Amino acid sequence: MRRTGPVSAGPAAGTAAVLHLLRDGRPRTRAELATEAGLARSTVAERVDVLLESGLVGRTDNGRSTGGRPPSMFVFNPTARAVLAVDVGARHVRTAVTDLLGAVLAEDYRALEVTEGPRTVLQHVCEQGAALLARAGRTPSDLLGTGIGLPGPVAHATGRPTNPPIMPGWDGFDVPGFVRQRLDTAVLVDNDVNIMALGEHRTHWADRADMIFVKVATGIGSGLIAGGELHRGSQGVAGDMGHVRLQSGIGAVCRCGSTGCLEAVAGGAAIAARLTAAGIPADTSTDVAALARAGSMPAVALVRQAGRAIGEVLATAVSFFNPSVIVIGGGLSQAGAHLIAGVREVVYQRSLPLASQELRIVHSHAGDRAAVLGAAFMVIEQALDPTHLPALLGP
Amino acid sequence: MRRTGPVSAGPAAGTAAVLHLLRDGRPRTRAELATEAGLARSTVAERVDVLLESGLVGRTDNGRSTGGRPPSMFVFNPTARAVLAVDVGARHVRTAVTDLLGAVLAEDYRALEVTEGPRTVLQHVCEQGAALLARAGRTPSDLLGTGIGLPGPVAHATGRPTNPPIMPGWDGFDVPGFVRQRLDTAVLVDNDVNIMALGEHRTHWADRADMIFVKVATGIGSGLIAGGELHRGSQGVAGDMGHVRLQSGIGAVCRCGSTGCLEAVAGGAAIAARLTAAGIPADTSTDVAALARAGSMPAVALVRQAGRAIGEVLATAVSFFNPSVIVIGGGLSQAGAHLIAGVREVVYQRSLPLASQELRIVHSHAGDRAAVLGAAFMVIEQALDPTHLPALLGP
Repeated sequence: MRRTGPVSAGPAAGTAAVLHLLRDGRPRTRAELATEAGLARSTVAERVDVLLESGLVGRTDNGRSTGGRPPSMFVFNPTARAVLAVDVGARHVRTAVTDLLGAVLAEDYRALEVTEGPRTVLQHVCEQGAALLARAGRTPSDLLGTGIGLPGPVAHATGRPTNPPIMPGWDGFDVPGFVRQRLDTAVLVDNDVNIMALGEHRTHWADRADMIFVKVATGIGSGLIAGGELHRGSQGVAGDMGHVRLQSGIGAVCRCGSTGCLEAVAGGAAIAARLTAAGIPADTSTDVAALARAGSMPAVALVRQAGRAIGEVLATAVSFFNPSVIVIGGGLSQAGAHLIAGVREVVYQRSLPLASQELRIVHSHAGDRAAVLGAAFMVIEQALDPTHLPALLGP
Repeated sequence: MRRTGPVSAGPAAGTAAVLHLLRDGRPRTRAELATEAGLARSTVAERVDVLLESGLVGRTDNGRSTGGRPPSMFVFNPTARAVLAVDVGARHVRTAVTDLLGAVLAEDYRALEVTEGPRTVLQHVCEQGAALLARAGRTPSDLLGTGIGLPGPVAHATGRPTNPPIMPGWDGFDVPGFVRQRLDTAVLVDNDVNIMALGEHRTHWADRADMIFVKVATGIGSGLIAGGELHRGSQGVAGDMGHVRLQSGIGAVCRCGSTGCLEAVAGGAAIAARLTAAGIPADTSTDVAALARAGSMPAVALVRQAGRAIGEVLATAVSFFNPSVIVIGGGLSQAGAHLIAGVREVVYQRSLPLASQELRIVHSHAGDRAAVLGAAFMVIEQALDPTHLPALLGP
């Protein structure tokens, strides 16, 4: 699924153009495809044959009669291949098999510590993936590809984690190589917040060009959608907002070794530690959220304050990036309305009217499934994109 | 130059694909064009004829011999049309005529206050534009289009300024309509910082995907290049960093009515006022820069401090956006190394190692010409882009 050449290299480009048109689900005749793709009819006929053979496109019968025999119509077949989508969290692994439109066909969730190391976690992923494929009536040879989200920085081009702070043993590990050896599948890897942003955008905000997805859990990170596409940045670390120095954070010591980081003030781990120190035992951001939902006043106050701190950093991002929607997800966002209320309070107060007049700040709709859905869309879009189709269909 | 349909609508798409290939300047045969564009040879032959007739493509003789008569080769003709590029500043207007690769053919600069109002300023633009066209041996009918940068927020889709703070009389003015009536040209308008970012990127950093251009003058603004394209944001106000609330800015009153804005601490107007109050007369950011260059210690100290304040805001932008280059331009950037030294000091100190390890922070290379060059590229890219070509070549 690597790029094999320029956008318009050879006949594959025509194939990709035809497939791209059909992916909206509407059946078309060869003549319609030729007109819409700007290709010669003879070219379209050849390309359609290639796609029929691959199974990605099927023939359908609902052609409109034009007097004589109705012309053949062609339609995208989302079940032609399957995708294995994996969300590795700090303390869980969610695995799903989807079709080519991202519909989940089979799914599994289990508690598993990422600190168990790459071999244990990825061995589970491969075994569970094979089991889910079987449950969905598929085999590994049906896989279009496998998408994996990891809870730390990843060099997207190689799929290897780079100095991930909470993943001992994973640094530089060849994640794609390990999985490929066991499932014979193309593998794409990214950090969990990027794929959550992608999953949330594709399933709920596809009509918005610019979005920021913020995950507030043990730590705090974000994923940016710019012009409809994931913005990874030049080193692949765009959206890394957890260690932005906070105006109100002076003195708070962060696990990164610095002080005043957003995460040290507003992260779930920091809040849990503060509650525990105050005699209210809490371990994770989920614990903090549960306490706030249950009405614990110290928890509510700390979560609201966390929202304000996150809003302080987001206000600057809004000025620079001018998104039309900010989505708040992650364990701490389960704390009723307290977190998002704090975010809204500061963002709307600090942002310029023009940048915030149509800005929406909302909870995640995709919820726990944002990451696996994003992992699936990452694979689908890279594999069915015109620039990548040659690798998928062969020479 | 509006979109007239989907990317692949009709025969124009084939034309655009051929033109897109040729814009790199390399001559190609019909056979090479067919292979590279993934089009049938008969289609390419038709499309090349259209382009030859438009003048955008010419025939060239340096075909390689293949035994018999060498095949015809085709090449992009950057002088087929001209572009009128205009940079309206607070106190100046720069007008240029360029070819289709952005090379300046004729140029004019003069002092003119934007407060003179849109009719006076744009009347000058049209007269000067016609004069420059004549000087370059062209006529208005040669124009591919006109690009205009204005010193305030612009609704790019309509070309009308929206509540520009320093442009009395311009709010909602139909800039494209006024110019079109006098020069019969398509017109695109954007704010000056966006087109400076585009001009700087296209002429000096085209190989970098992600860039922030910061203009430090009377006020402070920035333009973002994301994935090689200008990122305007959902309301067209991306990059508006001048009114980000500053950690160290408490108390400074801004012209926007708020307090603690970056501009109120680090803008050229704010610094000039502070120097004047201290008995060192200064009016503009250029005055401040001249004082700093001349060694005035109070000016040097304020400029350096301005750089640190700008760096404070940019550090957050670096965390979110992860650019590989930050370019500092505008009048205050002429203050020797003092401004950029302050920026570097804080950005490198505050950014995470991964985000800043390959980050360059540099002075503008395009300098005074960044805006007109950006205005020219804005027109060229929109007009010769596959999605816009139908409007250019007609039905």
